[in-house]
Amino acid sequence: MRHLVDTGDEVTATFFREVPVWHPTHGLNIKRESLDVCSAAACLDLIDRVAPDVVYHLAGMAFVPEAEDNFLNALNLNVVGVSNLIRAVSLVGKKCSFLFTSSAEVYGHFLPEQLPLNESHPVKPLNNYSLSKAMAEMVLGRYASDSLRTVIIRPFNHIGPAQDDRFVVSSFARQLAEISMSRRDSVLRVGNLSAQRDFTDVRDIVQGYRLAALLGSGVYNFCSGEAVQISRMLELLIEQSGVAATIEVDNTRLRAVEIPVLYGSALKAKKELGWSCKYSLAESLRDAYQFWLMILQR
Amino acid sequence: MRHLVDTGDEVTATFFREVPVWHPTHGLNIKRESLDVCSAAACLDLIDRVAPDVVYHLAGMAFVPEAEDNFLNALNLNVVGVSNLIRAVSLVGKKCSFLFTSSAEVYGHFLPEQLPLNESHPVKPLNNYSLSKAMAEMVLGRYASDSLRTVIIRPFNHIGPAQDDRFVVSSFARQLAEISMSRRDSVLRVGNLSAQRDFTDVRDIVQGYRLAALLGSGVYNFCSGEAVQISRMLELLIEQSGVAATIEVDNTRLRAVEIPVLYGSALKAKKELGWSCKYSLAESLRDAYQFWLMILQR
Repeated sequence: MRHLVDTGDEVTATFFREVPVWHPTHGLNIKRESLDVCSAAACLDLIDRVAPDVVYHLAGMAFVPEAEDNFLNALNLNVVGVSNLIRAVSLVGKKCSFLFTSSAEVYGHFLPEQLPLNESHPVKPLNNYSLSKAMAEMVLGRYASDSLRTVIIRPFNHIGPAQDDRFVVSSFARQLAEISMSRRDSVLRVGNLSAQRDFTDVRDIVQGYRLAALLGSGVYNFCSGEAVQISRMLELLIEQSGVAATIEVDNTRLRAVEIPVLYGSALKAKKELGWSCKYSLAESLRDAYQFWLMILQR
Repeated sequence: MRHLVDTGDEVTATFFREVPVWHPTHGLNIKRESLDVCSAAACLDLIDRVAPDVVYHLAGMAFVPEAEDNFLNALNLNVVGVSNLIRAVSLVGKKCSFLFTSSAEVYGHFLPEQLPLNESHPVKPLNNYSLSKAMAEMVLGRYASDSLRTVIIRPFNHIGPAQDDRFVVSSFARQLAEISMSRRDSVLRVGNLSAQRDFTDVRDIVQGYRLAALLGSGVYNFCSGEAVQISRMLELLIEQSGVAATIEVDNTRLRAVEIPVLYGSALKAKKELGWSCKYSLAESLRDAYQFWLMILQR
């Protein structure tokens, strides 16, 4: 939202829950609307009133274990939600770009020699979360037309400030911030540190969303193109924070299905959209850590 | 169920609603279980107790307009239901074949020159029903393994006795039976008669299910390979029934999206399973009409 306002776009932002006062959207010059995407009537009413040129659809369940626990809930948020919103756009009938944030998780199975994954890699989702994202991509296919351009983004792992601390790097950053403020003992609890993932700063990703909505069509990977081991991310975070901590493996943080190495190719986004990443890993990790310091000091 | 019993298979049949006394399963030598496939716990309990060698999964929402009206309900029955059942089979861990009845509707968009559709035609579902079926196919992909063989059937239109009269041919058959018994005036209400569809007798289809579960793997079309106009089906039905009726087009029976001509190729099923259709159109229509006479005379 901040990026859109900065570029001069007129923004109507939808919220489901009340936003905490530290939320990055506070003070922004945007129109605010309450919306539950699971309500078809509410989506139709809003789209009819706002008549948007572009819809950035980011609402959804984003945490893999949550979708494993309740598939129907994941389908309601991630599939029916998308269907309600794009159906509303389709019914209102105004020319519109519809951007949907899917996930690199939809690729599922691959062989090491197929890395980096590009957009033509077959989709074979292996958990309820990625199933729901791949299903939502199919829903878009139903409504795409000459006047309703659809764009699907498959981002790889996100990092940066204001991330939910159920995600690995934000969890590390929060724990380090708590240790530095003596809010906890100096033990940092971690899951699998050996996995290698492809991390992109959320601020680079949102710039890509706008480029894709204006210039793109079809599917785009958003990623750095490089795999970094989680243990390396932790090292860099500790460096940025200057906090001394003991590392302890917590079995409850280990996921059932672990893919050892995953990274993608964003060549299509670079070529067609001119998109590239501006933030270094060190900057992203520093800002993630600073975010938690700011939150904890409130 | 009757076909399985006839071949000597030991059958545990699951029911959701109470079965009416005229139901074809009455008097069959089968074990009966009550099951709501939307309950993960109930599926796991049943699969654990029964330990099946083969699961024929036919439960689901089968009527296109119903899924249009309530997508979440369609996803619960047609996606979560499949997920609960195959996940239970996977967790119990016994070697098993899992047959899922998808639908030819998953193909969605095609060009006239691409007919007859075969199994390699791209999947592009264009309504909520076919979306839910294509999504369920993806769920199977998650659980398929060396010990859990998955078979997907994409049947084209069904005909024959005991069909729900929300489907076109059964609706005609019922109306003709009612007219012949003077239960209504001699006006037969119809929707679009110009569409051409590929009809297969349900008794041929169920024989194919067993062959596919025992011998097959992957996706199979079940169809006759020929398109017949709905108006021709009506003519044949009137011939079989000997009933004189006035035809009246009822706008509420017209579907929003109509595909003029659709037929498939069942070459793969013929080659790999040795499957073929035994019932002629005239026999299927006669038996559909006789079924309604039998029901109405009760």
